[in-house]
Amino acid sequence: MNTPRRLALLVAYDGREFHGFQRQPGFLTVQEELERAWSATSGETAVLHGSGRTDAGVHAWGQVVHFNTWSSLPAAKVKAALNSYLPDELVVRASAEVAPEFHARSSAVAKRYGYLLATGRSRPVLRRGLVAWEKREDLDLAAMRAAVPFLLGTHDFSAFAAAGRTTKTSVRTLSSIHVHPIRGGFGFLFQGDGFLYKMVRNLVGSLLEVGRRRRAPQWVGAVLASGDRRKAGPTAAAEGLYLWRVVYPQDPFRNLA
Amino acid sequence: MNTPRRLALLVAYDGREFHGFQRQPGFLTVQEELERAWSATSGETAVLHGSGRTDAGVHAWGQVVHFNTWSSLPAAKVKAALNSYLPDELVVRASAEVAPEFHARSSAVAKRYGYLLATGRSRPVLRRGLVAWEKREDLDLAAMRAAVPFLLGTHDFSAFAAAGRTTKTSVRTLSSIHVHPIRGGFGFLFQGDGFLYKMVRNLVGSLLEVGRRRRAPQWVGAVLASGDRRKAGPTAAAEGLYLWRVVYPQDPFRNLA
Repeated sequence: MNTPRRLALLVAYDGREFHGFQRQPGFLTVQEELERAWSATSGETAVLHGSGRTDAGVHAWGQVVHFNTWSSLPAAKVKAALNSYLPDELVVRASAEVAPEFHARSSAVAKRYGYLLATGRSRPVLRRGLVAWEKREDLDLAAMRAAVPFLLGTHDFSAFAAAGRTTKTSVRTLSSIHVHPIRGGFGFLFQGDGFLYKMVRNLVGSLLEVGRRRRAPQWVGAVLASGDRRKAGPTAAAEGLYLWRVVYPQDPFRNLA
Repeated sequence: MNTPRRLALLVAYDGREFHGFQRQPGFLTVQEELERAWSATSGETAVLHGSGRTDAGVHAWGQVVHFNTWSSLPAAKVKAALNSYLPDELVVRASAEVAPEFHARSSAVAKRYGYLLATGRSRPVLRRGLVAWEKREDLDLAAMRAAVPFLLGTHDFSAFAAAGRTTKTSVRTLSSIHVHPIRGGFGFLFQGDGFLYKMVRNLVGSLLEVGRRRRAPQWVGAVLASGDRRKAGPTAAAEGLYLWRVVYPQDPFRNLA
């Protein structure tokens, strides 16, 4: 049989150590590290396709990549083999064989991003780089939650997109936003069918303006309707952001520990 | 009045970035960084006294230090002043004026150490350096808890002390050990009137041997009674260890946020 197998990987990484996911000459990227490890494992030169880019400083708990291989290494063993070649800041959590039609990006039906914010007057020294930091401890949770309904649904999210990446459309569907208090701060969880460049960080930045009581909850609706990036709140720091999960019609890793 | 005031600081740091707490020529230490920041703040050259050393790689959430000053800077403002000169991996959580008799080490009546262990087949990539890692997921919590009573109380803890530091006596009182499951691993909490060099890490190392079912719970009692370091389990990694709290008859920071 002269057809390659397709493998998918579930990958976590510490975004501080990489210039984002996507290969860039002269910079250390997640894609390049994975390709290098696969080459060391199999002797093959493969291009690994991710579910999407993450920017420099953005972490991932559940990035998904796929690639083709002629290697006969059992899919279940690919994880350990790759991990033996990967640096400490990048780990393959699971490996699985997938159908040849599976595509890490275009097969995805939704993505979940998490955002961690530490609040308080002291820098989060033991989680620095892993959480964003807001000095104010009195963020208004109820107000942030009241702003959420203005953002949910299918909209043109241009007002929350940074320039710099071309996409066919800036219409996306946000299916859920959860804001919950965590010890020493707040956690945000976003699920949508896709996200524009820096969209999650811009949404967090605007929700924080509401949390600081500088803006009323309905203000985020006005920003959204304006389509004007200059009306939104400042972009929240990359270090709080996690690509948490990529959702597929069938989870490639469903049967794995 | 020609007597200096005494100030105390509550300090947190990421142990990865320092060669321990105590000043060592040619190495970056917590003590040196704090003294440098105080010198920049006040123009004074002061010696800061810690509650005890922490080794390279060991973290602190609640290290306490004291020092004397002629500066008239209000104690409550010392925190922010120092933090403006400190690196991201070291933060003053609180500052307070204390009685001239207060001594960070000798006034302490107890210390609490925490130990964080991630378990599972994937490296804890998003908390690397902040937790220790054990591949086995099936550690026996009940067995580890059953071993605890053999360690509590007043004993000669020589079997759990590393060579390399001289202390008058190796008798210490361990008042509590808690082992609790946390998401993706286990947390250990130790309270005692003092701890020998590497004692917490050696206690964890031996409890883990019980958790792995390589030893029975009562084995830790036999190790303790032997006074023989070679009989104990391997020393657990520094990266999981946190100096959590130093307990004084009166908490110097009791009235502070």
